[in-house]
Amino acid sequence: MTLNQVQFAVLGQLFHTPVKGDFEYLPQALVCIDNLGNILSVTTDDDSGFDANIQQLEQAGKLTRLTDSQYLMPGMVDLHVHAPQWPQAGKGLDLPLYDWLQDYTFPLEAKFADNSFAQPMYRSAVETLLANGTTSAVYFATIHNEASVTLAKTCLELGQRGFVGKINMDDASQCPDYYLEDTVQGLADTEQFIQDVLALPGNEQRLVSPVVTPRFVPSCTPQMLKGLGELTTKYKCHVQTHCSESDWARDYSLEHYGKSDVAIYQEMGLLTRKTILAHSIFLSDDDCEAIKATGASIAHCPLSNMYFANAAMKTREILDKDLHVGLGTDISGAPVPSVFHTCLDAVNHSRVREDGTNTHLPAPERGEAGSRISFLESYWMATVGGGLAIDTKVGLFAPEYAFDALIIDTQAPDSDLFVIPELDTPRDRLEKIIALNRRTNVRKVYVQGKQVINKDA
Amino acid sequence: MTLNQVQFAVLGQLFHTPVKGDFEYLPQALVCIDNLGNILSVTTDDDSGFDANIQQLEQAGKLTRLTDSQYLMPGMVDLHVHAPQWPQAGKGLDLPLYDWLQDYTFPLEAKFADNSFAQPMYRSAVETLLANGTTSAVYFATIHNEASVTLAKTCLELGQRGFVGKINMDDASQCPDYYLEDTVQGLADTEQFIQDVLALPGNEQRLVSPVVTPRFVPSCTPQMLKGLGELTTKYKCHVQTHCSESDWARDYSLEHYGKSDVAIYQEMGLLTRKTILAHSIFLSDDDCEAIKATGASIAHCPLSNMYFANAAMKTREILDKDLHVGLGTDISGAPVPSVFHTCLDAVNHSRVREDGTNTHLPAPERGEAGSRISFLESYWMATVGGGLAIDTKVGLFAPEYAFDALIIDTQAPDSDLFVIPELDTPRDRLEKIIALNRRTNVRKVYVQGKQVINKDA
Repeated sequence: MTLNQVQFAVLGQLFHTPVKGDFEYLPQALVCIDNLGNILSVTTDDDSGFDANIQQLEQAGKLTRLTDSQYLMPGMVDLHVHAPQWPQAGKGLDLPLYDWLQDYTFPLEAKFADNSFAQPMYRSAVETLLANGTTSAVYFATIHNEASVTLAKTCLELGQRGFVGKINMDDASQCPDYYLEDTVQGLADTEQFIQDVLALPGNEQRLVSPVVTPRFVPSCTPQMLKGLGELTTKYKCHVQTHCSESDWARDYSLEHYGKSDVAIYQEMGLLTRKTILAHSIFLSDDDCEAIKATGASIAHCPLSNMYFANAAMKTREILDKDLHVGLGTDISGAPVPSVFHTCLDAVNHSRVREDGTNTHLPAPERGEAGSRISFLESYWMATVGGGLAIDTKVGLFAPEYAFDALIIDTQAPDSDLFVIPELDTPRDRLEKIIALNRRTNVRKVYVQGKQVINKDA
Repeated sequence: MTLNQVQFAVLGQLFHTPVKGDFEYLPQALVCIDNLGNILSVTTDDDSGFDANIQQLEQAGKLTRLTDSQYLMPGMVDLHVHAPQWPQAGKGLDLPLYDWLQDYTFPLEAKFADNSFAQPMYRSAVETLLANGTTSAVYFATIHNEASVTLAKTCLELGQRGFVGKINMDDASQCPDYYLEDTVQGLADTEQFIQDVLALPGNEQRLVSPVVTPRFVPSCTPQMLKGLGELTTKYKCHVQTHCSESDWARDYSLEHYGKSDVAIYQEMGLLTRKTILAHSIFLSDDDCEAIKATGASIAHCPLSNMYFANAAMKTREILDKDLHVGLGTDISGAPVPSVFHTCLDAVNHSRVREDGTNTHLPAPERGEAGSRISFLESYWMATVGGGLAIDTKVGLFAPEYAFDALIIDTQAPDSDLFVIPELDTPRDRLEKIIALNRRTNVRKVYVQGKQVINKDA
């Protein structure tokens, strides 16, 4: 490493989870970032030349030193966000799904036909996620091309790694008449959207990627799904959709296609290494095998599942089978725009699943023994798992990975984090941060080596 | 009302829930507070002399005007907090209860034998709760008198309405040998603790109350429970304890006493109008009748239940039976020190209970239909329900109620609240605040008319 290769370096405490279910804590790590925003090296005082490198970097004005209350941590990956629903986050979540969709969600999404309505809403969504530490987000937009491109532009402008999908919904029997597209036109629009996002000025490094996005099986005709599969192949696109989210959705596919969502997506050319399946509650063993064989990923959205999924995801089994799996906030099927919170929710829901809920049943019949997951597994999903799902080298501090990173300060203003050095081991501190990190604790955010949030400026 | 009677007044938007399941929004309310910190009047421009009163108060320098993004809301009531566990909030919550107690909780609580250890820990706990908007807190301390009095003093000093219990644990077969008291000495200590708290300088208005606190049935001998019942009668004390929290706890009582926790507490003189029963998961119909007949209350701790209760509380039925019920964070059986968050958790857990978790069961056998609760019911529990439980006039804006109140600002620094005036009805705004309020949004906190937090100073 020569000094010229280093754009800047960060020196301080570091947490990450290279191994699922475990963590690494470095009390004093030096992370050097190259001119493209990728990590050149991660060294400690076990490495030769450590002190000399620090001195050199400091003299060159390239070194950021963290304080004792600050931690360098990987940026969070949110695998499932409905960006146009951000304006309603928190509203109506005590309603049944049908009412919530008809009374709140579809009317709101339909407003994005007006790009001037969309602009401030998308700006707020991206700003909010970044300020909470989400460096990569996988977004459902709406059926509207102009506003969906606006979302992609907003990610570029604010510096977030964005995966943006114009939604497809063309089955008139399942979609409201005011929020529906024609099959042929919808496919043409989607191809145009893909081309527009790839050609966006400033997107030469592909910070923002287009995503093929059938809303879910019931909202699309078979022709639409088939056409989207062809576009996926043609453009080697990422794909995102909802998968077996509820009893109703699972049954719809069985009734109309005689097979599961996973099998339908696979048949249509929509199940690839770059496919992200949100929810995936009612997966069969065959479904899991197909997902594993293709290297597709699951976006686990635990809080939203509590509201709308009718059951708990088999997170324990999915982790044990080594499927690719990360976390999603599912804004606004859940209200909280922080993947740290999603980590807590994932642990919570796994605990509820393990013990069950029904006091009228004897304990052995109530839950599913052995289904809990740990905080460390949850945090792994939010970082490394998310990086695998978007097929991008993020979520870890290692050479060649993009420097998508957070500086978390446990002594930020109005913070709930109470770290007690003499009582808290590194693992304790990491668990406290996962459980109680709030937006205020996220002081600086870097994406691809660029500082996009600095609250201490 | 004469000007002299008014200590100060607040003018602005106001939310509260006088009727369970409903809410009241006043776009421009004038709340006048008397010299003792109680509410004199709540008026709107429908009331005669409204404008003249405002002018008079303003000229006298007694008026606080809220901005368009600020809301006057009742202070939150936290019915179940283990204050000495605050230092470990977030640690080990993916462990089974036994491990969490033996490896984390009991060793930490035992440290409170040292009052100099206790002081900064209790200060942090009370400061944190106040900063999150908790104006009344019902605290378990530890078995140690000196440190428990320190907690009471800390509430007084920082201005929080506190209900503080020195814990009783005297059954050597169920308690660790390093964290155990003698029966006779424990009872004497408890009486001394009650007297000490009542006699604290500055506690003439009884801002802080002593609470008789058997940890739970298994940790106490029958002699201890009986003695505590006598102290309860003698001093007309509040009582708090854990009640039927888990399969194991319920079974322990049935095996050792042949009756339920509620029946045991009633027999021992511990079930009164001023008793707060934390958790109360496995209640029989008889238990519910006894609770209702005495006017005792339930502290519902939904997030903690997800970790440790083995099942979901029958919240829907308890609300419908009109039992007294409020919310508890159960720090650190759950990590989040905000009752706003507990409101969200209560809705979440009721939804999980309604739908169930086990994907291997058919939907009708999976959950318990009709068991969901609403955001408004949850918020009612956090305010009005909490006030009923502590038998104190708080939780509402009405004459003769104490002015325990919050000024919530949806445009606070680093806030996640995104209120859109042209899209959000008052109900929408309230639901957003319940779901997404964070510590930063709590700008000012008043207890008994005294401003104890002001983040805009």
